[in-house]
Amino acid sequence: VNDGPAIGIDVGGTFIKAAVVDSRGTIMGAARRPSQSRDGFETTIGQAAAAAEEAIGQAGVQRSDLLGIGLGVPGIHRSRDGVTVWNPNFGDGWRNKRVAEAFTKALDLAAFMDNDVNVACLGESEFGAGRGVKNLMMITLGTGIGGAIVVDGELVLGATEGAGEIGHTIVEPDGPECCCGGRGCLEVLAAKHPIINRALAKIGSGRRSSLDSLPPDEVTPALIVEAAGNGDAVACEVVLETAYYIGLGLTNAVNLLNPEMIIIGGGIAQAGEILFEPIRRVVRERALPYSSQACRIVPAQLGEEAGVIGGATLARREMARRTPA
Amino acid sequence: VNDGPAIGIDVGGTFIKAAVVDSRGTIMGAARRPSQSRDGFETTIGQAAAAAEEAIGQAGVQRSDLLGIGLGVPGIHRSRDGVTVWNPNFGDGWRNKRVAEAFTKALDLAAFMDNDVNVACLGESEFGAGRGVKNLMMITLGTGIGGAIVVDGELVLGATEGAGEIGHTIVEPDGPECCCGGRGCLEVLAAKHPIINRALAKIGSGRRSSLDSLPPDEVTPALIVEAAGNGDAVACEVVLETAYYIGLGLTNAVNLLNPEMIIIGGGIAQAGEILFEPIRRVVRERALPYSSQACRIVPAQLGEEAGVIGGATLARREMARRTPA
Repeated sequence: VNDGPAIGIDVGGTFIKAAVVDSRGTIMGAARRPSQSRDGFETTIGQAAAAAEEAIGQAGVQRSDLLGIGLGVPGIHRSRDGVTVWNPNFGDGWRNKRVAEAFTKALDLAAFMDNDVNVACLGESEFGAGRGVKNLMMITLGTGIGGAIVVDGELVLGATEGAGEIGHTIVEPDGPECCCGGRGCLEVLAAKHPIINRALAKIGSGRRSSLDSLPPDEVTPALIVEAAGNGDAVACEVVLETAYYIGLGLTNAVNLLNPEMIIIGGGIAQAGEILFEPIRRVVRERALPYSSQACRIVPAQLGEEAGVIGGATLARREMARRTPA
Repeated sequence: VNDGPAIGIDVGGTFIKAAVVDSRGTIMGAARRPSQSRDGFETTIGQAAAAAEEAIGQAGVQRSDLLGIGLGVPGIHRSRDGVTVWNPNFGDGWRNKRVAEAFTKALDLAAFMDNDVNVACLGESEFGAGRGVKNLMMITLGTGIGGAIVVDGELVLGATEGAGEIGHTIVEPDGPECCCGGRGCLEVLAAKHPIINRALAKIGSGRRSSLDSLPPDEVTPALIVEAAGNGDAVACEVVLETAYYIGLGLTNAVNLLNPEMIIIGGGIAQAGEILFEPIRRVVRERALPYSSQACRIVPAQLGEEAGVIGGATLARREMARRTPA
């Protein structure tokens, strides 16, 4: 009975995306709405519900055929209770809100939620890079650095659903202060802005680079990676430094968790081998040999769709396990 | 049927300890034999079996009442298959040996094995500091630094049973080389010999200390902790530096796994608050607030008996789950 389609909803800061996804992970219908943090909780739920209705119409399925809804929401939650505690993209309007219940009311379907990175990891784990892998970790590189852990096929949530925060593991104990209150976290050294700032600092110190013709606010990780691919020395250094820090973070994860696979997602991960090869080298040089040999480090495969596919996976798994919210 | 007594065997490098342990974790009978790495596999198994027979006699139980045997063995194993791949204390004689099967033959009881730290963690988790806690981590401080992870009540083994190796997570990326091939691992900075060497280096540089009257080979972590408790400045520095590195390692574990509890075991952990207080401070200052607040950092409670109690726990759990080796 769990082989019907389910709805996945990705409550992002820029777009709310909804899709009807079948039991093989194929998107049957999809829609999205722009999300505005100022809209308030009810409005955002309404927008999301409208996107879901559109996706259902597009998929041409009956409501009664749908298993339920799975939501990926940024922030900190009590996901087992369907409650979002804090959502960085939507501010105080989403504090301590019964999100799952609101979606159940709006769409008349059982709804389940989890952290957006956990949900993306579920999608990659079931239908993406991690198909068939029981022990894996996902890391997402972007404005922030997130992570999620799967042990024996199940997401590790932890005591307060804070597990997986590899972005706040320490890779330079005396490094710069991080937004989390710590110091030298992976995120403060290898997320989007540190990468850009490192390139700008090198250019600012007078180094010649193909990037130095750009206005500083137009330099992006994608352009830095492209310049590195073209042999630009400054850009190559930035990519290697970034890979070094990511490699240290992954070394710690490999030694602690001995996963079969680490999936790297997020925009910067599209850099390909120019980033992956030095990351793998750091892990090979520094992690325990048995554990490093057992761990494949691979790019995510579902891209932007990991959230909705993972959401539908969450709904399917939870319907097999718990009572609806 | 799983409430009968079971045998726990701790195959240590100095002693092989065996005990009959009841379903509440109480030791009903115990015995031990000195272990010699030169003895060879068969001899060591015979010694262990003799210790187990003595423990059974002491406990006054019938063989038919015993559920099975659980073994804690140092090194790297395929524990699900009952095979030890590599045992640092016993050398090549234990390479790729069917340990569980050998004990089943010697004692005519189902036998199960796991890494010694995992087994001690099982004991602490079920009957020691971690009673009732579903998500925890154990770290053992000694000549080496080991670790074990419990998620939702189950040990995390990982892809090649290498999970939990917090001793080889990096706490100083440019730090000294470690025996594992890495650099700046927790073990190379906070295990027994680094602690001693740090004290000797300070004394060697001319610092006055109550320890400077001792021959260098008599300085131990226990004496350093004692001197720190008496206000010796050199010893206090060494304890704080050790706590700093342990705190960094635990911060990474807290942010990655969000455990409810971290249990610190091993000889040095008997230092008490003089070591624990600064460790907790580092974690509080550097880990994510939600995760750090949710995590109690506590000393192990079972001491030297964690191995045999954990072994019996392993046997009880496995008898409830798998077929004997």
